[in-house]
Amino acid sequence: MMRRGDQLLLGFLFCLFLSLAFAEGGRIRHYRWEVKYEYKSPDCYKKLVIAINGRTPGPTIEAEQNDTVMVELKNSLLTENVAIHWHGIRQIGTPWFDGTEGVTQCPILPGDTFVYKFVVDRPGTYLYHAHYGMQREAGLYGLIRVALPPGVSEPFQYNYDRSIILNDWYHKSTHEQATGLSSLDFSWVGEPQATDRQLDRSLSALSFQIEGHNMTVVETDGHYVEPFVVKNLFIYSGETYSVLITANQDPSRNYWAVTNVVSRSSTTPNGLAIFNYYPNHPRRSPPTVPPAGPVWNDGDSRLAQSLAIRARQGYIHPPPQTSDRVIVMLNTQNKINGHVRWSVNKVSYNLPHTPYLIALKHKLGHVFDQTPPPNGYDFVNYDISIKQENVSATSSNSIYRLEFNSIVDVILQNANTMEANKSETHPWHLHGHDFWVMGYGKGKFDMYSDPQKYNLVDPIMKNTVAVQPYGWTAMRFRADNPGVWAFHCHIESHFYMGMGVVFEEGIDNVGELPTSIMGCGDTRGGTFHRP
Amino acid sequence: MMRRGDQLLLGFLFCLFLSLAFAEGGRIRHYRWEVKYEYKSPDCYKKLVIAINGRTPGPTIEAEQNDTVMVELKNSLLTENVAIHWHGIRQIGTPWFDGTEGVTQCPILPGDTFVYKFVVDRPGTYLYHAHYGMQREAGLYGLIRVALPPGVSEPFQYNYDRSIILNDWYHKSTHEQATGLSSLDFSWVGEPQATDRQLDRSLSALSFQIEGHNMTVVETDGHYVEPFVVKNLFIYSGETYSVLITANQDPSRNYWAVTNVVSRSSTTPNGLAIFNYYPNHPRRSPPTVPPAGPVWNDGDSRLAQSLAIRARQGYIHPPPQTSDRVIVMLNTQNKINGHVRWSVNKVSYNLPHTPYLIALKHKLGHVFDQTPPPNGYDFVNYDISIKQENVSATSSNSIYRLEFNSIVDVILQNANTMEANKSETHPWHLHGHDFWVMGYGKGKFDMYSDPQKYNLVDPIMKNTVAVQPYGWTAMRFRADNPGVWAFHCHIESHFYMGMGVVFEEGIDNVGELPTSIMGCGDTRGGTFHRP
Repeated sequence: MMRRGDQLLLGFLFCLFLSLAFAEGGRIRHYRWEVKYEYKSPDCYKKLVIAINGRTPGPTIEAEQNDTVMVELKNSLLTENVAIHWHGIRQIGTPWFDGTEGVTQCPILPGDTFVYKFVVDRPGTYLYHAHYGMQREAGLYGLIRVALPPGVSEPFQYNYDRSIILNDWYHKSTHEQATGLSSLDFSWVGEPQATDRQLDRSLSALSFQIEGHNMTVVETDGHYVEPFVVKNLFIYSGETYSVLITANQDPSRNYWAVTNVVSRSSTTPNGLAIFNYYPNHPRRSPPTVPPAGPVWNDGDSRLAQSLAIRARQGYIHPPPQTSDRVIVMLNTQNKINGHVRWSVNKVSYNLPHTPYLIALKHKLGHVFDQTPPPNGYDFVNYDISIKQENVSATSSNSIYRLEFNSIVDVILQNANTMEANKSETHPWHLHGHDFWVMGYGKGKFDMYSDPQKYNLVDPIMKNTVAVQPYGWTAMRFRADNPGVWAFHCHIESHFYMGMGVVFEEGIDNVGELPTSIMGCGDTRGGTFHRP
Repeated sequence: MMRRGDQLLLGFLFCLFLSLAFAEGGRIRHYRWEVKYEYKSPDCYKKLVIAINGRTPGPTIEAEQNDTVMVELKNSLLTENVAIHWHGIRQIGTPWFDGTEGVTQCPILPGDTFVYKFVVDRPGTYLYHAHYGMQREAGLYGLIRVALPPGVSEPFQYNYDRSIILNDWYHKSTHEQATGLSSLDFSWVGEPQATDRQLDRSLSALSFQIEGHNMTVVETDGHYVEPFVVKNLFIYSGETYSVLITANQDPSRNYWAVTNVVSRSSTTPNGLAIFNYYPNHPRRSPPTVPPAGPVWNDGDSRLAQSLAIRARQGYIHPPPQTSDRVIVMLNTQNKINGHVRWSVNKVSYNLPHTPYLIALKHKLGHVFDQTPPPNGYDFVNYDISIKQENVSATSSNSIYRLEFNSIVDVILQNANTMEANKSETHPWHLHGHDFWVMGYGKGKFDMYSDPQKYNLVDPIMKNTVAVQPYGWTAMRFRADNPGVWAFHCHIESHFYMGMGVVFEEGIDNVGELPTSIMGCGDTRGGTFHRP
């Protein structure tokens, strides 16, 4: 609820869920979570979710900068394992608690309690979510809110602080989704299932707006943004934004808040909520028709928002002016043995059986493909704008090994899918780092001219960035966090279908691994831990 | 298909699935299985099943007596573990390959390949099925057919040999079933879900008959039966039967084969198949109305069949005339912390986190409750015929420790459930042994007079036996198989709800455990197996 004149900070994440920020004192934030299946019906359709302590989204983690968060996670699923990723937390010094099954840890078995313990070193609003199979889609996610320490204030003011998670919601189980995606008789997760009388949502890219109220964007992915005003905010899976809203409209009524799918033509109905002016009843419908939101295929407006996002003056992290290595990643849709897959440079990613972090630290080189993945594609001859005749690709679990402390540029190059005149939006998320967003462009990236246009002055740092249809996005990061880090499209089904890579850096500087992350693949069984 | 005059051997198991018996030569039967989710629609309702090599029921294991069966099982489920039990195979010398998660092994993780290797030491028709969570209900089961060695013949003759599995089929996923069963807002797996337009079946006890054809029962659970003739066969979950059928009816038409639920009032429609006389078209409907099958509540007929089953002359294994220990097991329905549970002597069973076999062999005594479970109940005061006022019970993972080579009597005593005037049928299955069925009775077992009526002459040996509503069943076995063995109601949901116990015997005589069964609980992680 808002009173006229109030300023509101909205933290956006990818059911409408409100949480108050009660940042308590103390340096260790201890949470005890039980993960299990429960029946829920948030949209009046009763289905199983994977809940934390009976809730989806799970409990919000509240901490202050430099606190240690400790989550004791008990897996009370009957036959399923689990793993949780702390999205946006860089895990400096604790790469083993990144929660990425197959990359940094073995899954947590039914009946097991696993303790995640890590420092939240930067204020901001972040996410946590399952990083195993497609369990995130089953409702296993929530918020992490890291407050500034006492005495430090944000470079903007507000009266109230509310958080909203925008999330895909499917009626099918994750098992059904994954089976459909991996079947020869391919079925996409996101299309309405008329025969089941259910309506699934495919919300990779969304717009959010509040009727009659502009929003001032002030923060994204834990970094302050040079403020700019939007009527609607475009947001991609894995991103977080903070916006300021001034409650300066007619207080005798409520207003619609609307979210709608953009970047793909969708029959999913728009998500609606009510922006409430006190003392109106919070459920009193506004007297207006909800705004329709922007049209789905207005790519220029989306690109314009991306270009408007720059680091706030006084909070700029200057980027290195040059890089040591450039990796170009062509994003394509392919077929392997009849299965629909996504690929990077014609290599479709699959997870190894023994997590890389353990394999590399303990020199179990045989557990994954040692051939490095390609640094690029056939720039000269590949036409990104057309449907390809040859849609074949290979599968691999090979990884990019980066020189420690080197500066790495990654160019994400989008292309046409296997369907003519179609290219999708992919939000790429990097674990363990923030990166600088150096530039965006349309068409094929030009290795000679496009780097000249990079923003070397005030690029924003993020952990997730979108690559637009038929476009490219350039990012730069310093490989200074010893560990093994996934970098992948944050659309759950795309990563499952191979749209990801893995970086190793400074493995020799990784400390002794906790045995709790072991127990699968080549690290299975055999030792007895007597109490 | 049958020609007039043919004699047919039908092996019954607990879908209609036919398999020919091609018993090949050789001593090791090697199977490679991949377990994964697939969409199937056997009753025209598309749903996920857990398939083996793309099939449910899975491939039939064909072997000869004393062959070694070797199953390389690859778990290709995305996030779920698995374990397979070889139902009716005693696993003499290989208790670690019994496949009972939590009792004899840790579950098999996604991506892992587990090798089961065991001797099939007795001819007969057996089952295999998942023994983890409720995965059996997801379709993870099949047949094991062990033929006589060349030169040895059965004491009856036939022209054709066909196998039929009778199985429960649910439209709900096992996750949905288990969540319903374990919720405070309890929902039973087996009631029709009108809102889902689906019809579930609850088939704990079935009748099977073929219109116009009597059946001669000749074998059960791998033991020859003194032949007797029935019009319909009663069969309980986990049992196997062989019957002879003579095709001596009018060959110009086909006949109905019908299975129907007995022992509980059910709205599930009867299962129908066609018994085909060649050269009629196999799908040509018989000109008659399918027989309705026996009424559900005719307990006397079911008891009469049980009493008719005796060991065949010439194939009698004489039972020990006395026992060393008697354990009475009162079967009751209870509530624990608001949850509906089943109990034995007011103790509701739950599985430990570290399998007993490993814990006992490696002396990890802390991983389960060391207090022995009760040997009986309050015989004098407990009225089995009425709904109890006090329905509380306790939970425990404690086990019965049996003196090696001792003779043990178990009396299964049925009682009223938590609903007035209701008692259910429970088929109890013992792992690792065959037992002698010493007697059946109605009402409360009398410790003084009833043992006088035991069949000490020609009792049948079985691995699964039913206890009828308000009745008792007495069984005797020799604790001569070193290992740890589950004994439980074979209705998947009843075991999940606590209706089971575990026996240990001769643990010191168990050989070195394979490390492949480890990897969970106190045996998780930490060791590296370099190739």
